[in-house]
Amino acid sequence: MDKEKTKYILDENDMPTAWYNIQADLPEPLPPLLNPQTKEPTQLPPFLFCDELNKQEFSKERYIDIPEEVQRIYRSWRPTTLFRAHKLEKALDTPAKIYYKFEGTSPAGSHKPNTAVAQAYYNKKAGIKRITTETGAGQWGSALAMACMYFGIELKVYMVRISYQQKPYRRNLMEVWGAKCVASPSPDTQIGKKLLAEDSNHPGSLGIAISEAVEDAATHEGTRYSLGSVLNHVLMHQTIIGLETKKLMEKIGVYPDIIVACVGGGSNASGMFLPFVKDKIAGKKKNLKVICVEPTGSPSITKGLLAYDYGDVAGMAPIAFMHTLGHTFIPAPLHAGGLRYHGMAPIVSHLVKLGLIEDKAVPQLATFEAGIQFARTEGYISAPETNHAIRVTIDEAIKCREEGKSKVILLAHSGHGHFDMGAYDAYLAGKLEDFEYPEAKIKEALSQLPQIPVK
Amino acid sequence: MDKEKTKYILDENDMPTAWYNIQADLPEPLPPLLNPQTKEPTQLPPFLFCDELNKQEFSKERYIDIPEEVQRIYRSWRPTTLFRAHKLEKALDTPAKIYYKFEGTSPAGSHKPNTAVAQAYYNKKAGIKRITTETGAGQWGSALAMACMYFGIELKVYMVRISYQQKPYRRNLMEVWGAKCVASPSPDTQIGKKLLAEDSNHPGSLGIAISEAVEDAATHEGTRYSLGSVLNHVLMHQTIIGLETKKLMEKIGVYPDIIVACVGGGSNASGMFLPFVKDKIAGKKKNLKVICVEPTGSPSITKGLLAYDYGDVAGMAPIAFMHTLGHTFIPAPLHAGGLRYHGMAPIVSHLVKLGLIEDKAVPQLATFEAGIQFARTEGYISAPETNHAIRVTIDEAIKCREEGKSKVILLAHSGHGHFDMGAYDAYLAGKLEDFEYPEAKIKEALSQLPQIPVK
Repeated sequence: MDKEKTKYILDENDMPTAWYNIQADLPEPLPPLLNPQTKEPTQLPPFLFCDELNKQEFSKERYIDIPEEVQRIYRSWRPTTLFRAHKLEKALDTPAKIYYKFEGTSPAGSHKPNTAVAQAYYNKKAGIKRITTETGAGQWGSALAMACMYFGIELKVYMVRISYQQKPYRRNLMEVWGAKCVASPSPDTQIGKKLLAEDSNHPGSLGIAISEAVEDAATHEGTRYSLGSVLNHVLMHQTIIGLETKKLMEKIGVYPDIIVACVGGGSNASGMFLPFVKDKIAGKKKNLKVICVEPTGSPSITKGLLAYDYGDVAGMAPIAFMHTLGHTFIPAPLHAGGLRYHGMAPIVSHLVKLGLIEDKAVPQLATFEAGIQFARTEGYISAPETNHAIRVTIDEAIKCREEGKSKVILLAHSGHGHFDMGAYDAYLAGKLEDFEYPEAKIKEALSQLPQIPVK
Repeated sequence: MDKEKTKYILDENDMPTAWYNIQADLPEPLPPLLNPQTKEPTQLPPFLFCDELNKQEFSKERYIDIPEEVQRIYRSWRPTTLFRAHKLEKALDTPAKIYYKFEGTSPAGSHKPNTAVAQAYYNKKAGIKRITTETGAGQWGSALAMACMYFGIELKVYMVRISYQQKPYRRNLMEVWGAKCVASPSPDTQIGKKLLAEDSNHPGSLGIAISEAVEDAATHEGTRYSLGSVLNHVLMHQTIIGLETKKLMEKIGVYPDIIVACVGGGSNASGMFLPFVKDKIAGKKKNLKVICVEPTGSPSITKGLLAYDYGDVAGMAPIAFMHTLGHTFIPAPLHAGGLRYHGMAPIVSHLVKLGLIEDKAVPQLATFEAGIQFARTEGYISAPETNHAIRVTIDEAIKCREEGKSKVILLAHSGHGHFDMGAYDAYLAGKLEDFEYPEAKIKEALSQLPQIPVK
C-alpha cells in the first residue's frame, strides 16, 4: 500500500551529505567566464567571492561534501516532503501520477536557503563579516537574511524599488532576521546615485540591483557579494532537492518520465533536474523529458540568444555564455519577480544546447489559473514563480489523459505564495495582464550584446 | 543518537485514527450549556449544528474515530513535525530541553484546519450545502475556507471589519479557496444593519461577527454555523496534535515536565494538553505543569470570572459556564487577533478550576520580543498568538538555567506569522503598545453577566 501514500519524507539521518556537481559529467565543458574589462577567461572576482565558492564554481569533482554545520541548519527543515498529488490527479481525471517536492516549508518559504546557508557558511569560514546582495520579489534576500543570521554575518540587501514598495512584508521578513534592506536604485552607490539623479523614483530592476550590490562589496573592506542563482556553485547547492527526490522515488519504486520546473536564473530547476540529467547523460534514461518553464514576459531561453553577455546592467559582473535577452532588457512587471531576469544560468543554457533539457514559455494569466486549481485541490498556495511549473504540469497531465498514458510527472515546487496574495487578489479581480514582447523590442535589446565569440 | 535529532515525524500510516475526548475522564462533569432564552440546559441548537457534532459535544466516549475522508485530508500535512529547539536552547544557555510541535505547515498555516476539516465533513454528510462563520485575524476563516473547498460546501465568512481592512491577505486566502468574505458588521444581517446605522465604519468585534454568522445560519435554509474554538467537539478535533506528540515523545523516550500553549478560545492549547492531562487525571503524571498563556489585553482567565455568560454579543448563542470578561467586553486591539475573545472554552475553564492546568497573562511587547528571538534562532516566523506561548517557554527555560534543572518543555506552536508581518514591522519600528485594563473597566463588563447560578 506504500504507493498510495500522500507524502514521503526521508528521515533526517538519510539526508544526502554531498551535493552533486554536473561539471564532472558534462559531455562537453562549459565555455569559460570572461573578465568584463579584458574579455579574457577568468575566475570569479576574488573581491566578490571567497575562495571556496570560487573553487566550487569551476570544480570537476562529482560530489562535494556538505559541511556538517550546513547540514545542521538544513535539518531545520530538510529533508523536504515529496507529495503525491492525488487530489489534483482526480480533479484532472488523468492516469498520470503527479509528484511534487515541496520547498515551501523552509523558514524563508522557498528553495533559496539551500544555497544561502552554504554561501554564508563559506564566507564566515573565510572571515567575511559583511555580505551584500540584490533581491527582486524578496525570496532570495529573505533566504540570505536567514542564513546570515545563523552565522552572525551583517547583510545589506538592495531590493528592486518597485518590489520594495509593493511587497513590504518580504522586507519585514529580512528585517526580522536582522538584515538591512534598501530600495534600489539607492543613494548608497555611485550607480544608484546616477540613476536617482535621472529619476528620483526610479522603479529599479534586478540588473541594476546586482550592479549596486557588486559595487558595494567591491568598495567595502571585509565585504563579499552573494548571488542567489545563475552561477555553477549556486545551482550545485540546490541539488540537495533532486538528490532527496531520487532517494525517495527509489524507495517508492518510480522514476519520473517528465520533470517540470520554473526557471528565472535557473537554480530551482537545476536543483531538481541535475541529479536526474546525470542518468540521461549516462545513457540510462534516454526518454526522460525535462521541461524548464519561463514566463512569456521574460523569455530568455525561448526568445533570447545563446551568447556572451553581462550579468548586470553596469557590466561589472563577469561575462557569461548564456541564453540572454540582453543585459539592458527590462522584463515585464510580472508578479513572478523571481523569473524577471534577462539571462539564464550557463549550465541550463548549455544543457538546452546539448538537447538534454527543453524549454517552454507560458503567459501570466494561465499560470495563476493553474495556481488556483492547485490551491483548490492540493490546498497549498504556491508562489507565482511556481505557478509557471504547475501550469505545464497540469497541461502534461491532461495530455496523458488524452493519450491514455500513465506517465510519472515530477514537479519542482519551489515555494509558497504567502507573500504574494496581492497578486492572487489582482488575478481574481480580473486585473492581471499577459505580457508578450514584440520581436522588435527583443531584437533591439539583443543588439546591445557585447558580441564576443565563444572561444 | 536519536535524541540529538532536530525533528521527529510520524509516518502518515502511524497517524492517530481517533480523537481523544476528555469528557470520558473528567473527575466531575462539565456544567450544562443553557438555552439563551429559557436559561434551561440545552443541546447545541440543531438549526446551527448538525447532529453528529451535537452528539460529539456531549459524548462521554473516550475515543471517537476520525472518519477515513477526514484522515485522507489530514494527511495532506499531518502528522506534523515535532522539533527539538537546539538553537534556541543554545542561545538561552539553558539545560532545559525544548520541543515544539509545529502546526504552521498546514496549507492554512495554523492548527485550525484540524477541526475545520472535521466540521465540513460532518456537515457535508448531513446534506448541508452552506456554512457561515466569523473570523477575527482570519486564521479560522481561512482554515474553514480550505475545508469547505475540499467538500464543495459554500462558505460565508463574517470578518471583523478592522481585520478585514488591516489584513487583506488573509481575506485573499479565503477567496483563493472559494469562500465569500464580508466585513462585519455587514448589511447582510439584522444585527449588522443595526450597528452600521449607529456607525457606518463600525470596527466590529468577534462577538458581533459571531452574532451575524449565527443569525445568517438561523435564517437561511440548508445552512449551518461553524465555530473555530470554545466548544467541546472543536477542542476534541484538535487532540490529534497532542496524540501525535505523545506518540513521538514515547519514541524518543521523554515526557514533558511543562506544556506551554497560548489560549484565545482554547482550542490550540487543549489540542496539545488534553491527551497529557488524561495522564494527570489518572494520577500518573502528578508533576506535569500545563501553562495556558493569554494576553494581558484579553485576560479572561486571569482577570475574568468563572460564570455563566453568552458566547456572542447579541446573546443568540448558548450560554456557557466559562471564564469570561463579560460578553460586552471588547478586547484591546492586539495583533494576536486569535486571542481577542471575551470568554474561554468551558473545558479549559473547568480544568483551571480543578487545578489541573494553570494560567498566565503576558503583555504584547514581551511576546514580540520572544517571537523575534525564536525567529533569530529556530528560523521560523511565528504567529503573534504563538508568540505568547514562546514568551513563557523562554521564561521557563531561563528559570531552568537559574535553578540548574534540565526540564523537558513542550511548546504548542500553533502557526506561522506570514500574514502578520505588519505587526512585526510595527514592533521593530517601536510602534506597538502594551494593553492592561484598569480593574474598573473589567468590573463594569462583568456587571453585565446574566447572573445565572450553576445548577
